[in-house]
Amino acid sequence: MVRIGVVATASRLAPGTEAAVQDIARGLFSPGEAEIVFHPSGNRAAGHFAGDDAARAEAFLDVANDPGFDALWFARGGYGSCRLLDRVMPGLNRTARNKTYLGYSDAGTLLGALYSAGFGGVAHGPMAQDALRPGGEAAVVRALNWLVRRDPEGLEPSDDGAPRAAFNLVILNHLLGTPWMPDLSGHVLMIEEVSEHLYRIDRDLWQLTSSPALKGLKGIRLGRVSDIPENDPPFGQTPEEIVRHWCDRAGVPFLGPADIGHDIGNRIVPFG
Amino acid sequence: MVRIGVVATASRLAPGTEAAVQDIARGLFSPGEAEIVFHPSGNRAAGHFAGDDAARAEAFLDVANDPGFDALWFARGGYGSCRLLDRVMPGLNRTARNKTYLGYSDAGTLLGALYSAGFGGVAHGPMAQDALRPGGEAAVVRALNWLVRRDPEGLEPSDDGAPRAAFNLVILNHLLGTPWMPDLSGHVLMIEEVSEHLYRIDRDLWQLTSSPALKGLKGIRLGRVSDIPENDPPFGQTPEEIVRHWCDRAGVPFLGPADIGHDIGNRIVPFG
Repeated sequence: MVRIGVVATASRLAPGTEAAVQDIARGLFSPGEAEIVFHPSGNRAAGHFAGDDAARAEAFLDVANDPGFDALWFARGGYGSCRLLDRVMPGLNRTARNKTYLGYSDAGTLLGALYSAGFGGVAHGPMAQDALRPGGEAAVVRALNWLVRRDPEGLEPSDDGAPRAAFNLVILNHLLGTPWMPDLSGHVLMIEEVSEHLYRIDRDLWQLTSSPALKGLKGIRLGRVSDIPENDPPFGQTPEEIVRHWCDRAGVPFLGPADIGHDIGNRIVPFG
Repeated sequence: MVRIGVVATASRLAPGTEAAVQDIARGLFSPGEAEIVFHPSGNRAAGHFAGDDAARAEAFLDVANDPGFDALWFARGGYGSCRLLDRVMPGLNRTARNKTYLGYSDAGTLLGALYSAGFGGVAHGPMAQDALRPGGEAAVVRALNWLVRRDPEGLEPSDDGAPRAAFNLVILNHLLGTPWMPDLSGHVLMIEEVSEHLYRIDRDLWQLTSSPALKGLKGIRLGRVSDIPENDPPFGQTPEEIVRHWCDRAGVPFLGPADIGHDIGNRIVPFG
């Protein structure tokens, strides 16, 4: 029996998420094969957030530190994971180190911090609330089959044997300069983005590739960049051209596309 | 005779800027008291930018390295100063160190880098293109009277004798983790922001106050935060509440308001 705890570290769960996920799970697993437990705090609301910082941090630690759970599955993105780091990181026990953590977008702040603390089971991939995207069942099936059966079908396919990490670009940039930035030297770094102007993507890549912390990358792969607001005047470069430009300037190899993004096709990237 | 060179390090100058500024200057100064020279590159266009990176960097160095200029005045914001650092910073000569540099917004990237390199004449304040804001003459008069006569009237009034620095928040955050982040320990840091969602302001302040580089601040003052796009759901805190929250969490004193912002009231803050 694989037990998965679902935690909302940022915004509150949208109504219907749990029912949709449990429905998908019933179709996938035989009785006794897996249990998915939504931490009740995910339905709380405190303004923008699924409960205040203390409540969300406690929910995270409830699941992470409980030997009865094999995996912590991030419920959804939004904004708020960064606000938990100073409470969550010092509160993690030995059990928490041997667990799988799966999420993306805003959750990347916690994934990055866990990875920087030496946690081996960190992965970038679909979250529970992807069940509500049109066609989102495929994303949830991918996540659950990997969490429960380690089905390799859902893994991002560009694996060349080098250690890997994947992030939303803005989220990774916000780890720069903090104590929670993981050492990514030797890694293939995959980035994806959503709803950012091209000039902001350019600025983020400038910062990222200017940081000595990132000079030792094996290379960068670009996932999907979606819902780009219009730039006036037009920025004049595609996201791939922007990434290639900064890779060239920084002497970091550009390795091509990555099959990740803010969408139902988002494949799983285990870190390391 | 004080000679001021105006350089566009980001976007292209809006038509009419030079005429408006020269007009204001003629009303302020007696013949032979001041000369304002707009570097011709400010009218070039290369997509988003006032000429490509090489052209904008060359324009900056033309003015900064020329002993015939007393001050380099940033023409305007937009986006693009960060792209010049790796060309500009190694190209500055001894003359450049003894010059005044005045600007804000996107120009803060260069101001921060110059200050981190020990340049003593760096200041946050109005730019040439503020002449085109409604009522913007007041901002240009303030800038020119300070650049030419060191008129203290235009200075930000909260000076308590401690060294000071002022930045647009997003711009300062993008220096984190790069080699150009200035050492602000012991400083009163003033921040202002425009057109950012409150959740982004919160995230930026989390990053800033989490960075060991910022722990030694004497305190933070908050300038004006304008044109905030609507948050859904409402974020539930004002900008000042957000800043107070992160100051409290980080143990950095919150010192009150600062008279700076993306507006015609923007007062001048000499760094240091």
